[in-house]
Amino acid sequence: MKHISSRDNPLYKRLARLGDGKRDGHTMLEGIHVCQTWVDRYGMPELALFDGERLAQNAELGALAQALGSRVALSCDSRLMRNLSQVEHGQGVCFLVSVPEPLRPASVAESCLWLDRVQDPGNVGTLLRTAAAAGIHHVYLSEGSAAAWSAKVLRSAQGAHFSLSIYERVDLLAERDKLKVPLIATALAQARSIYTLALPRHCAWLFGHEGQGVQPALLAAADERVFIPQAPGVESLNVAAAAAVCLFEHRRQWLDQAADFRNAL
Amino acid sequence: MKHISSRDNPLYKRLARLGDGKRDGHTMLEGIHVCQTWVDRYGMPELALFDGERLAQNAELGALAQALGSRVALSCDSRLMRNLSQVEHGQGVCFLVSVPEPLRPASVAESCLWLDRVQDPGNVGTLLRTAAAAGIHHVYLSEGSAAAWSAKVLRSAQGAHFSLSIYERVDLLAERDKLKVPLIATALAQARSIYTLALPRHCAWLFGHEGQGVQPALLAAADERVFIPQAPGVESLNVAAAAAVCLFEHRRQWLDQAADFRNAL
Repeated sequence: MKHISSRDNPLYKRLARLGDGKRDGHTMLEGIHVCQTWVDRYGMPELALFDGERLAQNAELGALAQALGSRVALSCDSRLMRNLSQVEHGQGVCFLVSVPEPLRPASVAESCLWLDRVQDPGNVGTLLRTAAAAGIHHVYLSEGSAAAWSAKVLRSAQGAHFSLSIYERVDLLAERDKLKVPLIATALAQARSIYTLALPRHCAWLFGHEGQGVQPALLAAADERVFIPQAPGVESLNVAAAAAVCLFEHRRQWLDQAADFRNAL
Repeated sequence: MKHISSRDNPLYKRLARLGDGKRDGHTMLEGIHVCQTWVDRYGMPELALFDGERLAQNAELGALAQALGSRVALSCDSRLMRNLSQVEHGQGVCFLVSVPEPLRPASVAESCLWLDRVQDPGNVGTLLRTAAAAGIHHVYLSEGSAAAWSAKVLRSAQGAHFSLSIYERVDLLAERDKLKVPLIATALAQARSIYTLALPRHCAWLFGHEGQGVQPALLAAADERVFIPQAPGVESLNVAAAAAVCLFEHRRQWLDQAADFRNAL
């Protein structure tokens, strides 16, 4: 296996340049779990860089390196790996991969999550994780949202990326016509309490920018505006917390209906 | 007003040392909104430092400085303020305050939030914000949780600190006897679906460490263990998202009962 000892190595420089965000459709994955999941779902990375010291000690890393083969797997000095790592205790392996860009369905007939300029990577990651846990499979992000495959989003999402189809830089307003399910937006004004609403089996959930909420044109295009009844004088939930409440209220209502259906049989 | 131009000034050094965490029972607050709220709720800070340039231009900052008086209000060079600031665009004022340490109630008869070693400051901040929005007034944090009045937690909580009584470094197991309401913990095993449970009007909600969950001894002391039904094969929610689901399911059930009660009148 080729070993890199200099930070001037062009392959190493390419990874280092990716830093915390994706560039030119590429991103860096970090850690054995996420890298292994990548291989299972998408196959070979463009490049895999292993911490040489750890590689010698860790059977799991060794097996991954062997499976990848010497065309993509390289090792490097520990100090180079530490320099690359976004987390405090590096995990011995980084992948350079090209970001998946799934084709958007021509029409959308199942529940999905729409994010309008949600900027904080931690929020976007938590939203992806919550969506996956709620049984949603498709997430649409507008221009101006945090890059879904950046290191910080990957970290917060804890693997949710791999059970979702994630569409980025989507013109949500133009996408509106493809929706065959109701579009439900959270809003503070002219909205109904989510707890008084019988939610449809499938819908598109729309959440907006941390400070400004959903942009007016999109809000106007929604079929329903909902709010979460909060304690008087507080009225403020983090966008990812609000989405957790909505997506799981949806799940609760549907689980109830499923139970009613089973009971009626 | 006294003006500081050197980073060797002892008062400035004291603020700078606080950095991102609290030390010796003190913390740094940043921004006009949080500082103003501090004055409204707790009165004078020990020290208030204003960005001299901004102070001259901004009437709101000027009014605050005047109200505080020259005994606590100082100005400094903009570059010193930028060096102190935890946020990208500083907001012109910092307070040095002693962290509120409210006395714990001798017995607890209303809903509250218990956090067992929740480590991420962003999670703790979001949990505080969600608790306040759900109408909870008391939050207990164990040893090993993120410091509630640190800059990162304050930033995520968006002012929730000021509508809560926050108790830190609490021995939660020892506190158990003071609870006159059921203790409900989230757990993955031997737990009931939160959606099948009629939640009591008041309870103590217990959430645990991001990776390990609630520690076994505390879990054993809980009156009820609940889980949130998730999509098969995913089974993972961020702790702050899980708390949002639980606290607002609680709120939903109680709002329902309140509506039933009103309807019955």
